[in-house]
Amino acid sequence: MDFNSFLTSLATSFVIFLVLMVVFAWLSAKPANHVVYYPNRILKGLDPTGGSTTRSPFAWIQEALSTSEQDVISMSGVDTAVYFVFMATVLGIFVLSAVILLPVLIPVAVTDDGIKNAAKNSTLSAGTFSELDNLSIGNVNLGSDRLWAFLLAAYWVSIVAYYLTWKAYNHVSTLRAEALMSPEIKAEQFAIIVRDIPPVPEGQTRKEQIDSFFRNIYPDTFYRSMIVTDNKEVNKLYEELEGYKKKLERSEAVFASSKTEAKPEGVRPTHKTGFLGLIGEKVDSIEFYSEKINELVPKLESEQKATLRQKQKNAALVFFNNRVTAASAAQNLHAQIVDKWTALAAPEPHQVLWPNLYINFIQRQVRQYVVYVIVALIIFFYMIPIGIISAFTTLDNMMKLLPFLKPVLEINAVKVVLAAYLPQIALIIFLAMLPKLLLFLSKAEGIPSEGHAVRAASGKYFYFSVLNVFLGVTLSGTLFRTFKSIQKDPNSLIPLLASSLPGSATFFLTFVALKFFVGYGLELSRIVPLIIFHLKKKFLCKSEAEVKDAWAPGDLGYGTRVPGDMLIFTIVLCYSIITPLIVPFGVIYFGLGWLILRNQALKVYVPSYETYGRMWPHIFNRIIAALLLYQLTMFGFFGVKKFLYAPILIPLPIISLIYSYLCHKKFYRSFANTALEVARNELKEVPNMEQVFRSFIPPSLSSEKAEEDLFEDARSHVSRTGSFV
Amino acid sequence: MDFNSFLTSLATSFVIFLVLMVVFAWLSAKPANHVVYYPNRILKGLDPTGGSTTRSPFAWIQEALSTSEQDVISMSGVDTAVYFVFMATVLGIFVLSAVILLPVLIPVAVTDDGIKNAAKNSTLSAGTFSELDNLSIGNVNLGSDRLWAFLLAAYWVSIVAYYLTWKAYNHVSTLRAEALMSPEIKAEQFAIIVRDIPPVPEGQTRKEQIDSFFRNIYPDTFYRSMIVTDNKEVNKLYEELEGYKKKLERSEAVFASSKTEAKPEGVRPTHKTGFLGLIGEKVDSIEFYSEKINELVPKLESEQKATLRQKQKNAALVFFNNRVTAASAAQNLHAQIVDKWTALAAPEPHQVLWPNLYINFIQRQVRQYVVYVIVALIIFFYMIPIGIISAFTTLDNMMKLLPFLKPVLEINAVKVVLAAYLPQIALIIFLAMLPKLLLFLSKAEGIPSEGHAVRAASGKYFYFSVLNVFLGVTLSGTLFRTFKSIQKDPNSLIPLLASSLPGSATFFLTFVALKFFVGYGLELSRIVPLIIFHLKKKFLCKSEAEVKDAWAPGDLGYGTRVPGDMLIFTIVLCYSIITPLIVPFGVIYFGLGWLILRNQALKVYVPSYETYGRMWPHIFNRIIAALLLYQLTMFGFFGVKKFLYAPILIPLPIISLIYSYLCHKKFYRSFANTALEVARNELKEVPNMEQVFRSFIPPSLSSEKAEEDLFEDARSHVSRTGSFV
Repeated sequence: MDFNSFLTSLATSFVIFLVLMVVFAWLSAKPANHVVYYPNRILKGLDPTGGSTTRSPFAWIQEALSTSEQDVISMSGVDTAVYFVFMATVLGIFVLSAVILLPVLIPVAVTDDGIKNAAKNSTLSAGTFSELDNLSIGNVNLGSDRLWAFLLAAYWVSIVAYYLTWKAYNHVSTLRAEALMSPEIKAEQFAIIVRDIPPVPEGQTRKEQIDSFFRNIYPDTFYRSMIVTDNKEVNKLYEELEGYKKKLERSEAVFASSKTEAKPEGVRPTHKTGFLGLIGEKVDSIEFYSEKINELVPKLESEQKATLRQKQKNAALVFFNNRVTAASAAQNLHAQIVDKWTALAAPEPHQVLWPNLYINFIQRQVRQYVVYVIVALIIFFYMIPIGIISAFTTLDNMMKLLPFLKPVLEINAVKVVLAAYLPQIALIIFLAMLPKLLLFLSKAEGIPSEGHAVRAASGKYFYFSVLNVFLGVTLSGTLFRTFKSIQKDPNSLIPLLASSLPGSATFFLTFVALKFFVGYGLELSRIVPLIIFHLKKKFLCKSEAEVKDAWAPGDLGYGTRVPGDMLIFTIVLCYSIITPLIVPFGVIYFGLGWLILRNQALKVYVPSYETYGRMWPHIFNRIIAALLLYQLTMFGFFGVKKFLYAPILIPLPIISLIYSYLCHKKFYRSFANTALEVARNELKEVPNMEQVFRSFIPPSLSSEKAEEDLFEDARSHVSRTGSFV
Repeated sequence: MDFNSFLTSLATSFVIFLVLMVVFAWLSAKPANHVVYYPNRILKGLDPTGGSTTRSPFAWIQEALSTSEQDVISMSGVDTAVYFVFMATVLGIFVLSAVILLPVLIPVAVTDDGIKNAAKNSTLSAGTFSELDNLSIGNVNLGSDRLWAFLLAAYWVSIVAYYLTWKAYNHVSTLRAEALMSPEIKAEQFAIIVRDIPPVPEGQTRKEQIDSFFRNIYPDTFYRSMIVTDNKEVNKLYEELEGYKKKLERSEAVFASSKTEAKPEGVRPTHKTGFLGLIGEKVDSIEFYSEKINELVPKLESEQKATLRQKQKNAALVFFNNRVTAASAAQNLHAQIVDKWTALAAPEPHQVLWPNLYINFIQRQVRQYVVYVIVALIIFFYMIPIGIISAFTTLDNMMKLLPFLKPVLEINAVKVVLAAYLPQIALIIFLAMLPKLLLFLSKAEGIPSEGHAVRAASGKYFYFSVLNVFLGVTLSGTLFRTFKSIQKDPNSLIPLLASSLPGSATFFLTFVALKFFVGYGLELSRIVPLIIFHLKKKFLCKSEAEVKDAWAPGDLGYGTRVPGDMLIFTIVLCYSIITPLIVPFGVIYFGLGWLILRNQALKVYVPSYETYGRMWPHIFNRIIAALLLYQLTMFGFFGVKKFLYAPILIPLPIISLIYSYLCHKKFYRSFANTALEVARNELKEVPNMEQVFRSFIPPSLSSEKAEEDLFEDARSHVSRTGSFV
């Protein structure tokens, strides 16, 4: 890519961005679109636009800049605030780097004549260089003393990163502590999950076994326990019932709307009972669904009873009447054999992954490693199944398998396009499905909560992105191909990477620019959700609930957003010394991202769970991983540049490892556990333990009758004056 | 070494062993020697020989065999019982291996003709083979199908090792749990050590800070705290005082014994006050020491006060009035920043290493790694300082530095001997000092208890032994030399080792035999301690206390004994397939060792501390390390033997790693922490907390006055009816 086409693509992206901004200003002002642009405020019961009727189109910028971290926490939770700490930290790293790198390195590079010399000696093919390279290290002669400036800059960037991540870790740790010591009553702070409960001893029920175990250890603070059950059946019935309830509501809404028109008596909606409502007997919808519901309710109730009685598993939730004991119990070893009675802190009720709770210890270990192996195979060899799929999905095969598509596929134009693009389509579908696949695999590990599974999936996605996008593009091809040369000599990776870096600089400059102009433009303007919402509203939604579902904004999408940002961070960091011009692009990416996502977090997205910043240690580890990759690349790169003093860079990765080890030792445990000094803070009121307990009952099991009947009271009646030993 | 000299050395060792046994039977029967042969029983207040006056010389064997594990625990503690579990496990591994290896592998080897063929082809120098090799794998032809038997035997040995170590880990875990749940009151089960306490806030004392922190978290169970002080000064004074007290006692004994003789008024002992009692003013000893004591007592008291008031450090012992809370508190994270208020379980009072308690977090990390580096340097390069020392300690230098030795050194015979043996002497002194040096280094890491430091030193000694003795001898020279070839190709170590193994087989057979015949003979007969005791008693001891000191038996010496046994285990294991004849030697070593040490543990040694089996995970890890070394060596060895199916051995090390990981996950945490289900067991009486607290006061600070004055009562007066949040 030469300099002109780079400028063209940059300009195009910028124009798209401007258009999207104008679209946003125009569309977001219309009250009909408020549910798309301000759903978080609406769901929180706030006025969408904050009261003002005539808003400047740039009001959102001012609002995003003026909101404090506390506002973010109250609107969108600690996890979101931590995400902004991450954005701000990376932004800080790039701004402080740019302050030194741009005024120093660019003049040093421009005034040298490395490219001319190289072209003269023609040891390097001149074709790989463009005008941009005059501003980069490519223009510095091999072994020149000018490389000292670049070497020192490599140290500067690292030091800035250490300093800012240290501050950030401290800050996030405080945020987490503040959230956990809040006087609000949060059900999960009073509960622990207990897994791997040994078989029930003779003559005891499961409940008696669990209660006597914990009452014995925590005589004053044990409240009661909830045995985890196999809810597969009951969930199925419950969902079926809910589905019919929704359909009934919809049918009634259709019926009601038909009344208001010409015919006052209305038209009772009907549908066919067969496949997709296309075939089968025609029935009156309202009657049909009401009947179905009446059938299902007693079925569900009896299944609830059966579940609670007969489908008890070897896991339980245990409740304590204060936060300190719960925090302490989650950290303690309860049984002499470690894989019995394992305890861990309970997550929020709605993010518990119930079926994972009763997977036993050995199976969890095995599953974990099986998943790791599968993910490693996906990362390194994902091209193979896609190749197979695209070989399989030839037109002939498709016609055989999906005969009803035959008329379409026989059109010549469609044929040509499909034949040409089928492999690409398979790749695109694979990449679109990948986050979901990784999340599914992470859940299959036996992870007990949604938040944890998202973290695990996000880590996997990061490695996939860095290995395939960054290294893959840099080494011009998939890693798979380069493996051959690496296998011959494992040490060849670093110099190989280092020497191929400058060639891809322009590609990545464009990539970053595209990401922030087009990516953030689409993010802010929400064109796609807006169109989908209006289409759904017009053609599908009948009842109020359906409309609400149609504009439900979802959450920030930690799982894919963080790896995406981390990829940009890794790219910009690795190129920061080679092509300092990339650093301002990084600044814009994270600056613009901070601003636009601040708006989205405050007004659009609704967090679906809260982990009190547990994502941070993962983000931190990946920042260190990116830093290590950068430092190793730099070391290799200075070697390629034949700079004698390149070994001066050797301490850097060692410092990074020590630094990360120290941070881990100093901070990590308070993310894995709740510190007792934090948990001991006063609550604003005495907790209603009954309510805490009830909040953990899964909706499919939650029926007044079933509870009264079966969650028989197991409150502890231990006298406070008993002996303490 | 040819076959004859091997038999000769074996016979010699056996004769020495028989002589030592006879000596033991004869000497141990004399009542005057009972304090040497039965000190543990005497100190426990039991009759030395169990009541019988005429004992068969083999009674000890019967006694050792008939005592149960519970007897060992009651006489010598859980740590000793765990040591016997280790001995029995290793013995079991060798016995079960021998059952297959001897009847199968030796016939397979003998009936082949590999050595003849090799001699014919003379591709291998025939000189390295001896008659013994006919019984070993050396006599099997390269690539022969007979190697299948050896390969399957390699699997058999591994499977036996897995099975028995698994059983042992389970058993030791139970032993530990039983000891910890004992109804006896043990002071250390009510206390935790708290380190890294943050600076005292304005307007509070250190005591108030600590008490309010813990009372807040454990309102009902916090008892009181003891601030760790810098006791260097007070310890010095205390030791000086104790020294004078002993000398006074001795002088009085001398005086008393002089009275009973001819002169009824006696001779008052005198001594000179100068260097070693050789020069200076002559004084009356009793008067002099009494005066010194009178001088020191008030000095000590004022220093005690000063220490308690002004030398408070950032660490404390915190006491709880029940075991469950103490066990739980030791595992809990107390502060949001992990390196503040770090808690760990308290060791027994007398094994606390006080000065290590107030080393701060970062310093502990740094010290640990510095020590690791130093130890690695010692292990790999210990020959260098010894070379330097022996170069330095030439005769000329010695005469210059120690002029008073000049007359001795000028004797010609002495000169010749010294010149020849000085380097060897330096090596012997180094090897004798090494365990002490490693213990010193381990303590310098900042480890808080004696038992832990011994474990750490023992681990270091194991690596030293295996790397230098086993690998060193096998590779015929120090590792240092072989490093050159390894540096060129890191993968060359295994084949190099494998091909040099058979050459050293006879050496190690002799080594093991020497170890058990001479080593255990000396151990049982206690010739050296007996001679030292009688010499001391005759020439040095005057008072009763001094005689008692003279026969003090010391402890089992875990720190050097376990690495010694592990070395034998490693050697026998690695040779088990190559030269199956070594396995019976291993059986005798561990069988005889079990028997003789059982006697020593029951009757001689007095354990100096109790860690409730925390040594076991370390022993286990080293068994796995030995197993891995064995499996890798075998893989290399079959390669050298040009056996096509050698890769069948590849799964073995992987299985070992998985097995050890699973064991670690399943068992380890209950060794690092006390499980609450264990701690919750009933005590036989309500603990006297005052006494528990007092037992932790170091002797140098323990004076009624100082305590009353300064350990002001800080018992918690929290009402039991207070809110729990």
